[in-house]
Parts: sequence; structure tokens; C-alpha cells
Amino acid sequence: MPSASASRRSQEKPREIMDAAEDYAKERYGVSSMIQSQEKPDRVLVRVSDLTVHRADEVVWVRARVHTSRAKGKQCFLVLRQQQFNVQALVAVGDHASKQMVKFAANINKESIVDVEGVVRKVNQKIGSCTQQDVELHVQKIYVISLAEPRLPLQLDDAVRPEVEGEEEGRATVNQDTRLDNRVIDLRTSTSQAVFRLQSGICQLFRETLINKGFVEIQTPKIISVFRAEDSNTHRHLTEFVGLDIEMAFNYHYHEVVEEIADTLVQIFKGLQERFQTEIRTVNKQFPCEPFKFLEPTLRLEYCEALAMLREAGIEMGDEEDLSTPNEKLLGRLVKEKYDTDFYILDKYPLAVRPFYTMPDPRNPKQSNSYDMFMRGEEILSGAQRIHDPQLLTERALHHGIDLEKIKAYIDSFRFGAPPHAGGGIGLERVTMLFLGLHNVRQTSMFPRDPKRLTP
Amino acid sequence: MPSASASRRSQEKPREIMDAAEDYAKERYGVSSMIQSQEKPDRVLVRVSDLTVHRADEVVWVRARVHTSRAKGKQCFLVLRQQQFNVQALVAVGDHASKQMVKFAANINKESIVDVEGVVRKVNQKIGSCTQQDVELHVQKIYVISLAEPRLPLQLDDAVRPEVEGEEEGRATVNQDTRLDNRVIDLRTSTSQAVFRLQSGICQLFRETLINKGFVEIQTPKIISVFRAEDSNTHRHLTEFVGLDIEMAFNYHYHEVVEEIADTLVQIFKGLQERFQTEIRTVNKQFPCEPFKFLEPTLRLEYCEALAMLREAGIEMGDEEDLSTPNEKLLGRLVKEKYDTDFYILDKYPLAVRPFYTMPDPRNPKQSNSYDMFMRGEEILSGAQRIHDPQLLTERALHHGIDLEKIKAYIDSFRFGAPPHAGGGIGLERVTMLFLGLHNVRQTSMFPRDPKRLTP
Repeated sequence: MPSASASRRSQEKPREIMDAAEDYAKERYGVSSMIQSQEKPDRVLVRVSDLTVHRADEVVWVRARVHTSRAKGKQCFLVLRQQQFNVQALVAVGDHASKQMVKFAANINKESIVDVEGVVRKVNQKIGSCTQQDVELHVQKIYVISLAEPRLPLQLDDAVRPEVEGEEEGRATVNQDTRLDNRVIDLRTSTSQAVFRLQSGICQLFRETLINKGFVEIQTPKIISVFRAEDSNTHRHLTEFVGLDIEMAFNYHYHEVVEEIADTLVQIFKGLQERFQTEIRTVNKQFPCEPFKFLEPTLRLEYCEALAMLREAGIEMGDEEDLSTPNEKLLGRLVKEKYDTDFYILDKYPLAVRPFYTMPDPRNPKQSNSYDMFMRGEEILSGAQRIHDPQLLTERALHHGIDLEKIKAYIDSFRFGAPPHAGGGIGLERVTMLFLGLHNVRQTSMFPRDPKRLTP
Repeated sequence: MPSASASRRSQEKPREIMDAAEDYAKERYGVSSMIQSQEKPDRVLVRVSDLTVHRADEVVWVRARVHTSRAKGKQCFLVLRQQQFNVQALVAVGDHASKQMVKFAANINKESIVDVEGVVRKVNQKIGSCTQQDVELHVQKIYVISLAEPRLPLQLDDAVRPEVEGEEEGRATVNQDTRLDNRVIDLRTSTSQAVFRLQSGICQLFRETLINKGFVEIQTPKIISVFRAEDSNTHRHLTEFVGLDIEMAFNYHYHEVVEEIADTLVQIFKGLQERFQTEIRTVNKQFPCEPFKFLEPTLRLEYCEALAMLREAGIEMGDEEDLSTPNEKLLGRLVKEKYDTDFYILDKYPLAVRPFYTMPDPRNPKQSNSYDMFMRGEEILSGAQRIHDPQLLTERALHHGIDLEKIKAYIDSFRFGAPPHAGGGIGLERVTMLFLGLHNVRQTSMFPRDPKRLTP
């Protein structure tokens, strides 16, 4: 394990330095032994986000990562990072720090985790590069708690650089495979921190809204005998994704369900715009994009209306043809121009392009009681009234050439009285991607799986 | 499809009856055509739970299942059920109902779904067999919306009968395989309705508590190259279960994490006892059990203390031996006697019985910084300080004879600075089972999977 022994070698450094001259600060820095819960010290660690002018002149302990370090004569400036917050720290030769201690601080590998004791000092000029702009930390003690290897596979500053800026100035950006191969580092960037905090918010808002509407959360089995086959080699497919599914009995018309689902998504959008402005702004710095727009009530178009819009724009399509991805996106642009919304419902899909369990439209045998929902021109939900009559379900399965034996349990479940019902499945990664205007669903899946990727 | 045609035959019934005599009520009952969202009527459906004296003398529409029906001369009594609520309904020959209509109502297959128009009437004597005890519904119209097949594979009343009562009186109960083979019906019982509503509450309380503590919800991949092999042929193992997992960086001692996890569970227990009393009482009717007891702060015993208690009770066990299931349960009883708690933490397991990534105890090489948590004497959580140093992790993996190549991504994730951290995985089905004092985890998994069951 060469890298492991490299890490051991770095731990020897302070001793080498100590040999060089008497060091009056030698107890004030070094590499701590591994934390194995040996003791329970009283020490309180202050969070980086709490380092503000309210704590000016206080002595505090902070645990954080070394984001950057820059030595300059008898001083060393560190940026210390903790999740999405960072603060500037200064180690300067003086009463508390020796020359050796400054050198030690300057040589700590980036991304190492350190415990720092320091005095919070108000600064005269705002520190634009840090989230804590009004204070800096004057370091009195610094100990490495967990040492990073010296060569990082990617630089965090490169990983948050907008692509255009990188191209114009000839500065580095990080390609997607490098990011995903080193996801534990890529997840530390301000952009990733914001993306996944916002995603957590989507889950929270989704459940909050539905629990308030009287829904019950259930867990469905993932081990089933037939998996759905779909092409996963695209910017928006994964072999594994998180589905936020809603199923609901309705009284007389599946639009009752469509309205509840659309309202749930609207509550999510509103909640994100209310509670996650910081995260949205952070992601926008790297991936600029227009704020997400939606209407209340949600715009609902029928499939035939969409076809007319596309044909008017020069697209040739049959009445019973499904939307291709380019046509979906074009339609999104046309709808945005006409209705000024990034979110809409496309209702009454041709029966021919939907699964066998989709309820046919009794007024038009070529149509179905089914719908998709779109964000920025891409599908994020597919749903329908489900057939709740075992005889019609059997007929439709036979029409699709499906082996009845394989879906016996499904058909049988409707034999003992079933209410009319409808539902839909929301793709969590897609909602996150499209709300933030990102371009690949792998950016919004923590450890994405596709036909070419099973690790990390 | 013989059962499908049987279902069609039943739909002919009203016409046969109509032939017999002139029927002044013939428009007031019948089998409706399948609801395919043909129209959007204005009709408001009142929920069964809202049928109280506050609505006395109102004419209302209700959609519900026929739970039971009993004809008696010129009258028919129905019990109409909607989720966990039910109400008595009366169809009596008179101005609104004909003889034929009463006969039709009496012959509707149990579990069919009906739309009923009726007048809410206050009753003089409480109806003990229904949740809505103070009113009954005087039926004016009744239409079958979805017809159940005539022979139910299990009777709902049998399915909620306490086993002891069934044995004593020679009345039927329903065995577990019949339940699981017909889970869509078994899920309609008051017991199942209560179990899964309470389970939804556990999920909600778990997230609510952790979000308030500042945690972020993440989704981990389920597709991985190595699955854990465990014996799933027991009362408490499934081949698939829902894990509520917590991982947390700590400052100096893994007990910081243990305390947060234990507090999270305590918040769940409190929340359930506050918000789900009705559900707890409902389950207790079929499965009587003592209320769940817990202490604040949570009792934490060390493994060696548990060994001493077991040895005092006559059990022979080695210092580095794991707890067998019977010994686990015995220990639960001993702890309950001594400390009066159904929930406790067992800390500092022998290193030998824990996975390779468990942090060894630096003060005692045979111990580890690991713990299990127990409810009513059964394990519901296993957790530990995880090794965050890649060199120690490599050593421990080699000690366990693990192929380093297979866990490369895991070990590599610690090479660039990792904070000390600990965590644990809570088994959702087990927490539900043990909180309610149930005896098999298949009762608390909606569609359980085990080596013998892949459907429904």
C-alpha cells in the first residue's frame, strides 16, 4: 500500500523540523494520533458558520479541512472549510507561533482535517473569497486530525469553475468521469454540497406536502421477477434512480389525481425557492441558469394540442407517435414562449405508446387517460389512471402480448373490489437536475450507476 | 379467465330481479359502469370518519366497501368500511327502497365498493361494532362501483380475531401464508391499516428528528457488487428490508453519535405514543401487549456487564462470543426486570464478532467501539465507530481475509482526509414489530420477500 506509507512518512515531518532548532511552540502544533474515542475532552468545537463578529476576540476551537494554504514570509494564510462554509486563518510568527510552526502549517496537505485554536478577529476589509467575510482566525494551536494524501486527484477550485470561464482563460475544469471516479472529493465542493442539500429538501417537501394531504408513506419491494428495460446510456437515464411515487384513489375523474400531483410539485418548487435560495445561488455560480418558472394552477395541455404546436413549428409526426427527446425539448421551448412556464402537464397520450395497465379513454379509443409532466422541456413524471378492472386488464395485457402467468399476482389484486385510481412516478434526480438547470442526471445522483459504472 | 366471467355474471343480477315485478325504485340501485373518468360530476363524497352527529339529518353521498351485509325481513343492514373507519347503513322497504332494492343490497358481494346516498340519523343506542357509533346511514340510493368476486380467500373478521379467542371458541383465524398470498385483502384489516399507518409515522418521526438536528437525507446506491449473506429463514429476517441509516462525524468520542441515535429513537417512541394511540390500541385488540417502556437518558450497558448478567442467570458464554437469539431475548428479560426498560444500548462488543471496518478499542485489543440497540430483547440497530484511516482499514481487512481489490473504492474514499465518524442502521420492520409487540417481521413488511416468497 504505497500511499498508506506515504501518509505515515508525512507524519514524521514535525520531528524533522524540530531537530533543526529549539522550538518554543513545539507543543502547539503537530499530527495527532488517530481519534479512536480514547477520551471525552470538555473542548467545545465551534462551527465555521458561527464564526462571526459576535464572537470577536473570543478564543475558539474549530475543526475544519485545509482548503488552501499560502505561506508569505513569516506568515501563513489558510482557508479552513467546513461543509459549505469557510473562513480565513492566519498563522504568524510571534508569541504563539514559531517559524517552525508556520512552516508546518504551510505544509499541511490540502483536504487534511485540522483542529485549530485561535482568536476570532474582526477584519477591516471584507474577505471576498470566504463565506465568513467579516472575521479571520488568528491561530494559536494547530493539530492535524486526519491527513490527506499529498496529491489530490482533482482540485476543488477547478471543480467549481464555470466551464466557459475555464475555456476563456485556459484554466482547468474537471471532467465528469474524473469527478465520479473521485466522488468523495467532488461531493465536497460548494456546488455538490448545495445540490445534495437541495435534493434532501425535495424529499422533505414531497413528504411534508403529501402527509399534510393525508397520504401514507409506504415501502414497496425492490426485488421483483421482471425489471423494466430502458436505454440507460443517455444524459438522463441511470440503471438505478430514486422514484418518488404517488398512487391515489379518486372519486370520478383522474384529473383529481393530476391536480394533487401537480400541486405537490408546485409546493416543492415554492419550498425550494423559499428555503434554499443560498443553495440555488451557489449552484448558479458554476452553472448559470434562469430561475425556474411555474404557473398556478399548472398548465395542462392535451397531446393533440402539443402535436399541433410541433407541426406548426415544422415537425412531422403521426397522431399516435411518441415524443422523441429532441421534440420534447422543442415543445418545452414552444410552451415556454407561449405560456411562460417551465412546468406543464401533457395529458391524454395516445393509447398505443403507453403500458398495458393504462386506462383507455372511453370517448376516444386511440387516446388514454394518461399524462406526463415536464420541467424545462424534459419529462420528470409519467402517470395514468390505472385499469382497476381485472377483465379489462387481462384484455389489454393479451393485446400487448404479455404472458398472463407472469402478472397473475398483479391482475388478481383487482378481483376483490378496487377503487378507480391513478398515480405517477417522479424521478428525484431529474427534478433536482432540471430545477437547477443542470445538464446531466449524474450530477444529481450521489453515486450514479449506469451500464458503465458500478463503483464507487 | 373463469373468475372474470363470474364477475360479469354477477353484474346481470339486478336485471333478473327487475323482471320479477314492477320496481318503483329501479333507478335507485344497480351496478354502475366502470369509472373511466367519463365525467366530472359535482357530487361531494363525504368520508366515513366524518359521519357524526354533527351531520345528523343531512343527505350525504359516501363511497365505501361493503364490510358485511345482513338481511332481516324488509330490511338490510350493511356495515360500510373506508380504511380504518366503518358505519352502519340501513336499507329498508319504504318510500326510497323497494323490496327488490333491499334484496339487491343484501346480495352485494362483501368487499365490493359502493356509492351510497343516505340520510345521517342519530341512533339511540351506541353501535359498538362500528367506529361511527352515534349515527347510521338510511340508504336512499346504492350503486356498485367495483364488484368483488363472491368467494373471498380470507374473511376480514377472521383476520383480526385474536388467536387465543379463536382457539378457545373454535372460531377461525387466518394463517400467515394465506394472509401473505392475499396481502391486498389482509392489508384492509383494521390491524394492518394501523400497523402501516404507524410505520409511516416512524419514517416521518425519524426524518423530522434528524432534519431538526441538522442532518441531510441522502440516497445510497442499492446496486453494488457484493451483497451481504445472512440467514433469512427466521421470524426476523427478510431478503429485503428497509434500513433507516444514520452516519455522523463526531468530535472526540463515538458516544456523541450513540447519544444522537438513541435520542432519535426516543423521539420516535414518544411521537408514536403521542400521535398514534388509536393505531396502538387497534393493534393491541388483536395482539395484546404491554406499552413500550424506555428511559431518558437511554440505558447503556457494556458487553461485559451483559455477560455477567447472563452468567449469573446460568448461561455459559465465552468473553468473545456473540449473543445467540435466545440469549439476546433472555438478556432483554433480565434488563427489563432490573432497569424496567424495553430499550437499551449494548456497548463495546468483542472485536472478533464485528465486521472489519469496526474501530478497535485502543484500551483493550479484544473490544471494539461498537454497539447494538435492543427493543423488547431483540436487536433493531447495529452500529460502530467506523475506521477512518486507510492503513488501519487495510490491516483489518487483511486480518479478515478480505480481497482488497473488491473494497478498493471503499478504502480509497478515506485517503483524502476523513473525520472520525460512527453510525448505525435501524431496521424499520423490526422497530414497527417490536414497538407493537408483534411476533413476525412479515407482519410489518407490506410485501415481504424471503427465500420462499417473491410475490405478490
